[in-house]
Amino acid sequence: MTARPGPAQGDTAVAPPRVELLTIGDELLLGFTIDTNAAHLARALAGIGVEVVRRGSVGDDADAIAHAVREALDRTGALITTGGLGPTADDRTRPAIAAALGRRLLRDESVLAGIAARFAALGRTMPPMNDVQAMVPEGARLLTNHHGTAPGLWIEDDAGRWVAMLPGVPREMRSMLADTLLPLLAARVPPGAGVIRSRTLRTTGIGESSLAEMLGELGGATVEGLPLAFLPGWEGVDLRLTARGLGADVAERALHRASAALEPRLGRFLYGWDGDDLAALVLQRCRDRAFTIATAESCTGGLLGGRITAIAGASDCYLGGVVAYDNTVKRAVLGVGDDLLRAHGAVSEAVALAMARGVRTLLGADAAMAVTGIAGPSGGTPEKPVGTVWLAAEARGRARAAVRVYPGDRNEIRRRATQGALDLLRRILDDRESAGSTAS
Amino acid sequence: MTARPGPAQGDTAVAPPRVELLTIGDELLLGFTIDTNAAHLARALAGIGVEVVRRGSVGDDADAIAHAVREALDRTGALITTGGLGPTADDRTRPAIAAALGRRLLRDESVLAGIAARFAALGRTMPPMNDVQAMVPEGARLLTNHHGTAPGLWIEDDAGRWVAMLPGVPREMRSMLADTLLPLLAARVPPGAGVIRSRTLRTTGIGESSLAEMLGELGGATVEGLPLAFLPGWEGVDLRLTARGLGADVAERALHRASAALEPRLGRFLYGWDGDDLAALVLQRCRDRAFTIATAESCTGGLLGGRITAIAGASDCYLGGVVAYDNTVKRAVLGVGDDLLRAHGAVSEAVALAMARGVRTLLGADAAMAVTGIAGPSGGTPEKPVGTVWLAAEARGRARAAVRVYPGDRNEIRRRATQGALDLLRRILDDRESAGSTAS
Repeated sequence: MTARPGPAQGDTAVAPPRVELLTIGDELLLGFTIDTNAAHLARALAGIGVEVVRRGSVGDDADAIAHAVREALDRTGALITTGGLGPTADDRTRPAIAAALGRRLLRDESVLAGIAARFAALGRTMPPMNDVQAMVPEGARLLTNHHGTAPGLWIEDDAGRWVAMLPGVPREMRSMLADTLLPLLAARVPPGAGVIRSRTLRTTGIGESSLAEMLGELGGATVEGLPLAFLPGWEGVDLRLTARGLGADVAERALHRASAALEPRLGRFLYGWDGDDLAALVLQRCRDRAFTIATAESCTGGLLGGRITAIAGASDCYLGGVVAYDNTVKRAVLGVGDDLLRAHGAVSEAVALAMARGVRTLLGADAAMAVTGIAGPSGGTPEKPVGTVWLAAEARGRARAAVRVYPGDRNEIRRRATQGALDLLRRILDDRESAGSTAS
Repeated sequence: MTARPGPAQGDTAVAPPRVELLTIGDELLLGFTIDTNAAHLARALAGIGVEVVRRGSVGDDADAIAHAVREALDRTGALITTGGLGPTADDRTRPAIAAALGRRLLRDESVLAGIAARFAALGRTMPPMNDVQAMVPEGARLLTNHHGTAPGLWIEDDAGRWVAMLPGVPREMRSMLADTLLPLLAARVPPGAGVIRSRTLRTTGIGESSLAEMLGELGGATVEGLPLAFLPGWEGVDLRLTARGLGADVAERALHRASAALEPRLGRFLYGWDGDDLAALVLQRCRDRAFTIATAESCTGGLLGGRITAIAGASDCYLGGVVAYDNTVKRAVLGVGDDLLRAHGAVSEAVALAMARGVRTLLGADAAMAVTGIAGPSGGTPEKPVGTVWLAAEARGRARAAVRVYPGDRNEIRRRATQGALDLLRRILDDRESAGSTAS
């Protein structure tokens, strides 16, 4: 959580537009659906300088929807809803909001024709139930839907208070937001309004408290007047700087200043900025060097390969790998010596290095990563507790291994291990000096 | 989204307790954090018969918190908050709620001692900033925290209206909820109160509209008086039945009746119930038969192995696999013939079957799955558009292949493909009649 900024230190007088979000659906109240729409909306709105001041969720209940809409309009005067625009009996957003604003619902023939055409294109006849999706509150403006049957709606009253209604299906919501609603809102952000801008410095391989100690006096609540948040997660600890209520130029300069103050202190723990993904960064480094990559995985079971191939274009560098979950596979496919397995155990520096070497040779790759560990919940010992993971990477004639003891459950330990392996390879690729096989 | 139930058809008169949720933190309004706490709380509360009627989120702003708390108490009289109990300046829940309820904040020496002891156990001295975590609103009850420094708080007023404050860190929130708050609330659910119970039938390999057609008159808004929701996702289409406001026994009987009416119509598309995971079900079938399993993956890049090994105890059956992302790996490691690759292309029935056969032989497994497809965004052709995936499975001397054209983006196509491969193996393992290599 971020500390509030101090008084604006710039040239801003005009406040950014404020809006509330209301997500609608029984699923949200029963907890079966995690509300990703609200987070997506909030990020997109912050990007154009619109501030979300409140979020809410209600069920598919006309009274609850109408009540929540009236409250939001009285409080903030601007509201974006998602959900409840479908054709079935439980979709109540349309009539509830019409009632809340005292508008009649009228059939819009152009909308009806559009829905019928969409069904026709799929070789189907429009079911009568879809009729209701053509009911539009009097005076509403339509928001185009490229991915579904019903348009979104925008209603504004004489006092300039407005509600925008988007569908609940994330794909439809996102495209309607990007294509139609964001441009419409961006045009309402007054020139000179304060913006909300943030910059994230991504670190990995160091814990939150060690990072704070390393930053010393810079690790306080603010850096160069901007609030600094420590956000630990399985990828590492993100440091987020946020500028609020400043003009765009002033905000960018302040973020740049604060970021420049932090960066020299972070050393090689700093791997990227903002949305940077470590797998993508490692792939890019390999692409730059025309290196091919291979992976050997035990406890991660394929997650490391899965993460690398999540990136479109991974085939430029990534050849593939071996999931050596059982020791027979480590021996027979990767050529890990039985003596190593017996002397050191599968979770050891020697085996991690042998796995990396084995997969690199088998696939004829320039670089390789290997992971072997104890993801739990069982299998831990006093010497090698659950969370113990040996990582290895090999490239440019150099091999390096590292041991980590990751916190968290099975899922978190495995995800952290993919990050650890990628980070080890990143360090070898960035390394100018050291050579040879070293444990770090 | 679920349709509202009709009038309760049971023996219930007492309404279930109702509660609102308020999650607190700037991160939630900026969209950097997806609110998983609210969904977890909602599911856990539904499980003991407490109905969540509304959810909201506000930032780390004392006025906004106090305002939202007063609204919730006026509307519903019961509120659970998460977040804002930490030691830093942006943690404002404690004073804001004390102010909203007109209570003083008093230092609780036992809480202070507990926090200091926690730091001492880690060999550290308590920083002065943690002092504020010992400030407790007058008359509040403490909720034990086994995983963090500060306890949660419970305040109730003379009218029986209450607020429970939980920490925002998911691990701390979940344990406090389970250990302390749920037992406390369960004791307040009146005997004979209606419960919220649901039952999910999980299908895969069939689309929402085909499923609705297959169900015919059963695919309406209600089955045996219970609302039926179609919930499509990457794993398939879930059918959820929900009973609300009935007594526990009546609800269970109604869910059983409705489920029994649907099941015979779903045939082999039905693979599980409620939280069942297809990978776990396939592993269990292999365990029952003492079968070992191997995987060969191209477009999924390791996600299938990653998904299987997400299940603790996968090592009973899963040996490992080969990620054959590049065709050189398909040839050199899996022994896929160059003639097959040239004649049919990497995304073909012949190659999928050869991959499954190749990995089963290489690893000496009893069963194997293979995936090869075009996950996009590029690489599609008119004959094989993005989303085209050939799946193969082999077990018990039988091999089967299937082609799918999955919708969605790269991520969704890949996840759907893991489900498709597992489903193909499930069907072979369950098969009593057919034999030989068949495309289905």
